[in-house]
Amino acid sequence: MNVGIVGLGLIGGTIAKSLKNSHNISAFDISKETLTYALEHNIIDKSYHNIADFFRDNDVVYLCLYPTSIVNFIFQNKSSIPNNSVIIEISGIKNHIIKEIRKLNLQNVDIIYTHPIAGSEKVGVVHSNANIFKNANYVITPVEENKKSNLNLAKKLAKEMGFLNVSMISPDEHDRIIAYTSQLTHVLSISLVNSLSTDLETRKFIGDSYRDLTRISMINERLWPQLFVGNKDSLLQMIDSFEIELNKFKKAIASGNSEKLSNLMIKSTKIRSKIEQGENDEN
Amino acid sequence: MNVGIVGLGLIGGTIAKSLKNSHNISAFDISKETLTYALEHNIIDKSYHNIADFFRDNDVVYLCLYPTSIVNFIFQNKSSIPNNSVIIEISGIKNHIIKEIRKLNLQNVDIIYTHPIAGSEKVGVVHSNANIFKNANYVITPVEENKKSNLNLAKKLAKEMGFLNVSMISPDEHDRIIAYTSQLTHVLSISLVNSLSTDLETRKFIGDSYRDLTRISMINERLWPQLFVGNKDSLLQMIDSFEIELNKFKKAIASGNSEKLSNLMIKSTKIRSKIEQGENDEN
Repeated sequence: MNVGIVGLGLIGGTIAKSLKNSHNISAFDISKETLTYALEHNIIDKSYHNIADFFRDNDVVYLCLYPTSIVNFIFQNKSSIPNNSVIIEISGIKNHIIKEIRKLNLQNVDIIYTHPIAGSEKVGVVHSNANIFKNANYVITPVEENKKSNLNLAKKLAKEMGFLNVSMISPDEHDRIIAYTSQLTHVLSISLVNSLSTDLETRKFIGDSYRDLTRISMINERLWPQLFVGNKDSLLQMIDSFEIELNKFKKAIASGNSEKLSNLMIKSTKIRSKIEQGENDEN
Repeated sequence: MNVGIVGLGLIGGTIAKSLKNSHNISAFDISKETLTYALEHNIIDKSYHNIADFFRDNDVVYLCLYPTSIVNFIFQNKSSIPNNSVIIEISGIKNHIIKEIRKLNLQNVDIIYTHPIAGSEKVGVVHSNANIFKNANYVITPVEENKKSNLNLAKKLAKEMGFLNVSMISPDEHDRIIAYTSQLTHVLSISLVNSLSTDLETRKFIGDSYRDLTRISMINERLWPQLFVGNKDSLLQMIDSFEIELNKFKKAIASGNSEKLSNLMIKSTKIRSKIEQGENDEN
């Protein structure tokens, strides 16, 4: 197949590398440097400077842009996208994107909404790495406009990229779950790091736990605000649920209630072990 | 040297394994099974059932018990501890332990307060593993009663165990920093897991970030309540500081203030990168 990639950053580059062996890969990117680099390093087979040519030559196009750019890109290039094009977008939020794209009233173009749950704190094609996708999760959120065959194509390609689980779920559910598993997780990590008092000589007191919990506080500050604001309601709800649990701790610590603290720990150990167990069962 | 270990659990067993090649290791434990296991697996050279013999034969004794048990142990065995004994305790909190031990009014016994910042969610000698200590941090909190030579001995032995940084710092500072780097970190991880709504089919949406942030929510529910309650004031203060940062996020998300979100992320990225940089510089 001819697979096109718009936006050759970390994820776009990783998609290219993951599919390069079995498909013809081409790319469109605003940065000429990026395209030159990708050609020189054999990450893509071909680069395009004309968007109409690019769409015409490809069987499927991955749109690997930030949320706000996805809608702009389609709006600006609407007239260059031929009938029956299949576009797979890969952003971390769904309802907001779907709503905005529906406003553009595209005809005869099938946009498949997907989310590869994988990444890195690093950005750009130079850090793309096919290992990022290995054994990770991939989610597709079908909408009624989608053709079944195109959903299946997105699924097939995700499997080829190395993803272990490819699930189909509603956009609502996706946004709610991702607000918990990904967005809240990043909010906590960042807030933990930002609450460091500068007078503490912290470095010599760091164990694996702090290291693990704060790694994702090194974060792409251009992408993530878009994801948080685009999924505002779900994320705020998840923060509220988290705060209820945090308050249980505060109360138990303040009153020296060790039994209550034990129970909170027994609960978390049980839930987390079950998650790990479930994952191992599938591998 | 003859090195004795009281309490052959995860840390006691790991100390034994880390020093076994260069010292004679013996142990005292309430569990006969544990001692038999340790002898059979060549983790210790000798086991004791009489505490007076144990102290008489050893040059230094590691007290690897839970915080509340440390004080009980010394109180109950006060008369069996010979003059000039050197005891190194290894619990995760300091001020509380020091205060309780001072009440026992020991004479001519030097207790060195230390904290190996390393561990595992697993418990017991069967999970002890010398790799846990490799390149980890070790903190000694001297008190005025300590002899300098004994502090240096504790430091020397920690280095022999494989610890990378061995720092000396006041008990107050230790408790404040550990409340942040370790205790708050565990509270957040547990609260994140416990705030999971049961109706979410979470497993398929998990990325490395959630996995990393929740690993330590599998926690020893007998040990950690003692650490939290024994360091109540510092921990509650750290939770408060964290909540201030979390509220900044909530406000920025609710008002869709992407610039504010970006700034919070730039801050965390900078702090966390600096910590990593500092660690790499030392290695």
